[in-house]
Amino acid sequence: MGRIGKRTIKLVNQPSINGYYSVVGAKEGEGPLKEYFDYIVEDSKFGEETWEKAESKFVKYSSENAVKNADLSMNDIDYIFSGDLLNQCVSSSYAVRDMEIPLFGLYGACSTMAESLSLASIVIDGGYAKNALAVTSSHFCSAERQFRFPLEYGSSRAATTQWTVTGSGAVVVSKEGNGPYIKHITTGKIVDKGIKDANNMGAAMAPAACDTIISYFNDTKTDFNNYDLVVTGDLGTLGLEILKDLLLKNGYKDYNKLNDCGVLIFDTKKQDVHCGGSGCGCSASVLTSYILSRMKKEIYNNVLFIATGALMSTTMSEQGESIPGIAHLVHISNNKEE
Amino acid sequence: MGRIGKRTIKLVNQPSINGYYSVVGAKEGEGPLKEYFDYIVEDSKFGEETWEKAESKFVKYSSENAVKNADLSMNDIDYIFSGDLLNQCVSSSYAVRDMEIPLFGLYGACSTMAESLSLASIVIDGGYAKNALAVTSSHFCSAERQFRFPLEYGSSRAATTQWTVTGSGAVVVSKEGNGPYIKHITTGKIVDKGIKDANNMGAAMAPAACDTIISYFNDTKTDFNNYDLVVTGDLGTLGLEILKDLLLKNGYKDYNKLNDCGVLIFDTKKQDVHCGGSGCGCSASVLTSYILSRMKKEIYNNVLFIATGALMSTTMSEQGESIPGIAHLVHISNNKEE
Repeated sequence: MGRIGKRTIKLVNQPSINGYYSVVGAKEGEGPLKEYFDYIVEDSKFGEETWEKAESKFVKYSSENAVKNADLSMNDIDYIFSGDLLNQCVSSSYAVRDMEIPLFGLYGACSTMAESLSLASIVIDGGYAKNALAVTSSHFCSAERQFRFPLEYGSSRAATTQWTVTGSGAVVVSKEGNGPYIKHITTGKIVDKGIKDANNMGAAMAPAACDTIISYFNDTKTDFNNYDLVVTGDLGTLGLEILKDLLLKNGYKDYNKLNDCGVLIFDTKKQDVHCGGSGCGCSASVLTSYILSRMKKEIYNNVLFIATGALMSTTMSEQGESIPGIAHLVHISNNKEE
Repeated sequence: MGRIGKRTIKLVNQPSINGYYSVVGAKEGEGPLKEYFDYIVEDSKFGEETWEKAESKFVKYSSENAVKNADLSMNDIDYIFSGDLLNQCVSSSYAVRDMEIPLFGLYGACSTMAESLSLASIVIDGGYAKNALAVTSSHFCSAERQFRFPLEYGSSRAATTQWTVTGSGAVVVSKEGNGPYIKHITTGKIVDKGIKDANNMGAAMAPAACDTIISYFNDTKTDFNNYDLVVTGDLGTLGLEILKDLLLKNGYKDYNKLNDCGVLIFDTKKQDVHCGGSGCGCSASVLTSYILSRMKKEIYNNVLFIATGALMSTTMSEQGESIPGIAHLVHISNNKEE
């Protein structure tokens, strides 16, 4: 009941995505997806005193507008599923503290958009709620000073680094609606191949993405040919190449439908972002702009969205530990029946 | 379907708690609940090199033994729901990284035991899984150096502080079993009354506990008389008094069945812990020792477990922000039908 294969949930009631919204920073707004974002904020502090409070405002802004786009009011939302990269996930908690909506706080690092969408879909599909909000964020400046160096140092960046996206994406999942629909969920397990370089997270996450994608294909007896787009969260250019290698080793050759939100969001040649975008806000803002709007236009009808996360902390890296990777998959389709 | 009142889920299939396990540190093992804990670790590093790795080992130890107590193997667990207080929730992520089980990482601060139990119960009740593991932890030494001061400073502690519990508790929730059963869930929303003193978290969390308890009573049309024990997570002595005041103001006088895991776990007069225990591991280890073993013996048959969390970070406190409180409620009963 509800499960197919080893790790995949088939959502029998197929919850509908009724509203979504993306808000990003200035750099993202200069990238290849600029026409797709709902709102581009030029001021990195979004009118706030600190970057952490600015990030929180990004979450609030995307949440409120996603709910509005779903033709709902905040009172109609039964649950919020949210999380972010900041210590103790404060950008999402502070964003939603005045909303008076039951909150399930999540931590999935950059996999949070797919994690929140998975759990929101489960509570809707199971009849436990009518409307649920899934939201996440990241901010280049708050992430740099927490995970790396204060920006004022002007540190040089390794060639394998990615650029944390400033942005937030929010999705309203509902019991009734006209789609796109959430049809399957495959939840990631941790895959840790011993990568210890915190400046090379794409390499740490690619094996997890490969594991989840292949599990999903096995469980559903499908492959790349069944989808219009198979898009990972934030592997970046290097991580995406590693994923392709891994898929090839597992017998998957025709991955021309494979792409990555971290590659899509920036012009990696012109925007000085090295391997591309990262952060919870990367896959969240690309999903809620480029991907879902192209689904609305039926350019894509069948999409696998696989947000990827690197679950380390600076403390564990300093203690010599490797980086646990994870990848959560959500199958989104315009077709209710299959 | 599944919902009663405004905020409460009634679990129609009533998932069963089939296994549980508690492991705590030496100080907790000297407290009033010493006879109830499954395992007391004398070495604060649990044989590891650092306190963070020790905390991770606590999680692994409680998880593996809870699964064993449920007469299951790790292969039988469909999902893990886990989280902790450490930045990026590393103690739980690193604990489960070799288990090869799909993971939903959570952040609910000290409310995590009830949050994880809620979501584990929902996936079981909805037929999405057969067995799910809910686990959390905290460690006095890793928490002190992350949130307050390095222990080596020997800082003096404010009278309103609580003592972060070193320990972990894990629960296996299953579709089939002989109970105790999870019957209702009321998910907390953030309540922030403007408390800014990070040394007085009981005061910050008490209004959230009050809000969730009263919502649950309203939704289920019950009150204290219907339960053998109503136990909050880690309000401590001061927070518990504040909660009683708040309940009194709302017309609830007969709260002699109300208690708090942070009060229960230590002898607050003799153990130099000021207002009592705190941390995700506090409510988790008390639930999986004292509470569930007394339910097994039918001393308690009907329990409301309300884990409380303070969702701030040191960064937000330093930026002058108040502390958002949250409280998640789980109704556990020995009686399958009602």
